[in-house]
Amino acid sequence: MRAAIFRKGGLVVDEMPEPKPGEGQVLVKTLACGICGSDLHALHHAHHMVEMTERVSQRASRMDISRDIVFGHEFCAEVLDHGPGAQKNIKAGARVCSMPVAMSANGMEAVGYSNDYPGGYAERMVLNEMLLHEVPNGLPTEQAALTEPMAVGWHAVQKANMTKEDVPLVIGCGPVGLAVIAGLKIMGVGPIIAADFSPKRREFAEKLGADIVLDPAKTSPYKRWTEEAAPEGYDPDSMMTMLGLGPQLRPGVIFECVGVPGIIQQMLEGAPKSARIVVVGVCMEKDQFEPFFAITKELNLQFVLGYSPEEFAQSLHHLAEGKIDGGAIITDKVGVDGVAKAFEDLASPETHAKILVEPWR
Amino acid sequence: MRAAIFRKGGLVVDEMPEPKPGEGQVLVKTLACGICGSDLHALHHAHHMVEMTERVSQRASRMDISRDIVFGHEFCAEVLDHGPGAQKNIKAGARVCSMPVAMSANGMEAVGYSNDYPGGYAERMVLNEMLLHEVPNGLPTEQAALTEPMAVGWHAVQKANMTKEDVPLVIGCGPVGLAVIAGLKIMGVGPIIAADFSPKRREFAEKLGADIVLDPAKTSPYKRWTEEAAPEGYDPDSMMTMLGLGPQLRPGVIFECVGVPGIIQQMLEGAPKSARIVVVGVCMEKDQFEPFFAITKELNLQFVLGYSPEEFAQSLHHLAEGKIDGGAIITDKVGVDGVAKAFEDLASPETHAKILVEPWR
Repeated sequence: MRAAIFRKGGLVVDEMPEPKPGEGQVLVKTLACGICGSDLHALHHAHHMVEMTERVSQRASRMDISRDIVFGHEFCAEVLDHGPGAQKNIKAGARVCSMPVAMSANGMEAVGYSNDYPGGYAERMVLNEMLLHEVPNGLPTEQAALTEPMAVGWHAVQKANMTKEDVPLVIGCGPVGLAVIAGLKIMGVGPIIAADFSPKRREFAEKLGADIVLDPAKTSPYKRWTEEAAPEGYDPDSMMTMLGLGPQLRPGVIFECVGVPGIIQQMLEGAPKSARIVVVGVCMEKDQFEPFFAITKELNLQFVLGYSPEEFAQSLHHLAEGKIDGGAIITDKVGVDGVAKAFEDLASPETHAKILVEPWR
Repeated sequence: MRAAIFRKGGLVVDEMPEPKPGEGQVLVKTLACGICGSDLHALHHAHHMVEMTERVSQRASRMDISRDIVFGHEFCAEVLDHGPGAQKNIKAGARVCSMPVAMSANGMEAVGYSNDYPGGYAERMVLNEMLLHEVPNGLPTEQAALTEPMAVGWHAVQKANMTKEDVPLVIGCGPVGLAVIAGLKIMGVGPIIAADFSPKRREFAEKLGADIVLDPAKTSPYKRWTEEAAPEGYDPDSMMTMLGLGPQLRPGVIFECVGVPGIIQQMLEGAPKSARIVVVGVCMEKDQFEPFFAITKELNLQFVLGYSPEEFAQSLHHLAEGKIDGGAIITDKVGVDGVAKAFEDLASPETHAKILVEPWR
């Protein structure tokens, strides 16, 4: 089969062996697969990614970057065939989504970051039957492919334990920030304040449900947040306020959706007292911060990653029920030949949000 | 009156003007006042402390370190006289504790870090009547003086939202760590695992209620924690465990009671998945960390400082009800002449936990 393959630090299009479904697995045809920021990171920093994963897990990585890897973990696919011992509850021809995890006798592997389980930049994949979700009728394939990235935002919002009192602030409106905004909208909290330097990304943020979008080069997101979170009669300088009496700011929940060094310290400086910061951006670099800012304000930092199986299923339903206008952020579709160029295009925030790969093209 | 005064970067004993109680205030005689690690820090890094406080609050500091300051915010005192307009619910002669905060028409000031409100290293202080708590009969003065530092630990434990399932780990057994251990003991959670390089501090930790004490030079606190938190049949390498099925580790709550750069990164590396880290140690320096560790493990960092008025009152009651063996950690008592030497002595963890100043000596 054909695939866009990560080989020797670059992306090449080549033929590769067909994957074979094992015990309890299915063979699927990739219908659409989104390109994720993690894939961009993996392309340029594969060695570092493996090293960091090994340091955190204290195990040898299962991913050998000297051998071929096919990226792609945000997919919608069509069931082609069942492996031995499959239940066949979902028939051939059905469209499915799945968490990008493969389980076999050898343990768990990440579909799309594995030498043995090619991801969605290949024509076909092998998935585990027990993890499949059938795509509800009427949900376009391209939107179903957003299940995975939207689950990331939904999970982040769940981990924030939001109440209607909370005023959320989303810093960064790339795909992760957009998924968080969509999750906040579904939770019914607000006003949702979102900040990004890019006009195009601010446009996407509005489409996904941000109530107030701003350019941090012109307006401090934290100052704007305070204006929205202040009830009538709030006076930051009054002794009553300092003693916790009288009108207080509504609670703040700030979502870090940038993932570069320095951004957490910026948040510690900008955040209001007692704010919760949910770190959704994935920074793999060393970072500097000054704990005293967090201490004095009694900040809470919740780091998050991924989603639960339940949240993944909920995300598919959100899309199917029209609670997320996924179509609004799909900016291009390419075949495997277009993957390398798409990776380059995604470096600029001014054109693209989500590019889908359709390997059958 | 006499006092140990912070003047020109050093500690001197000198006479100073008597403080006068204003509207709603009382004049008190300092009976005993603990020396806090923050005072040691202030002595050596006063400029940096003021600078950091100004950066965080974005206001000019009310503390002018070119003028005299009397430290001391962990005190028990005797009411001498009432200022104008006082309610006099607590009579002269009564022993009292108070949060070290002074309120006047000019705003709030920190007693013990103020040019206008001398702290407990002076013979007399001015306090606000509405913040006074009468010391219950039978509680020795020296133990009542521990109300403030014990409130710090109690607050940290409250912010951790502990349940009986949680297995706490306390890193650092100086006064802050000891107060946390005392708070955990009162909460009835455990086993309480505590780590410190100093044998003497490990002894104090046991006296205050730690169930397991260890020397991190010999035993990894995180490894030991895992052994205690693992239920029967727990297997970290099984696929069932990774999928969140089967026996899981009990939840981990790690208390950072050291407050030096590097310790948070150590915790991010050592902490088990989903652990909550409560940062009680006050680090005023720049620090480095690698967010990826926290992200991959979905760690939560709760930074804490101080206590609420209610927690302060509870802390006094804990001591009065004998729930904390405060006497066990008082290792010396000095007059104002002995303060400078006591500051030096406290640099070594092998002799002292808490030294009390008795300015009436």
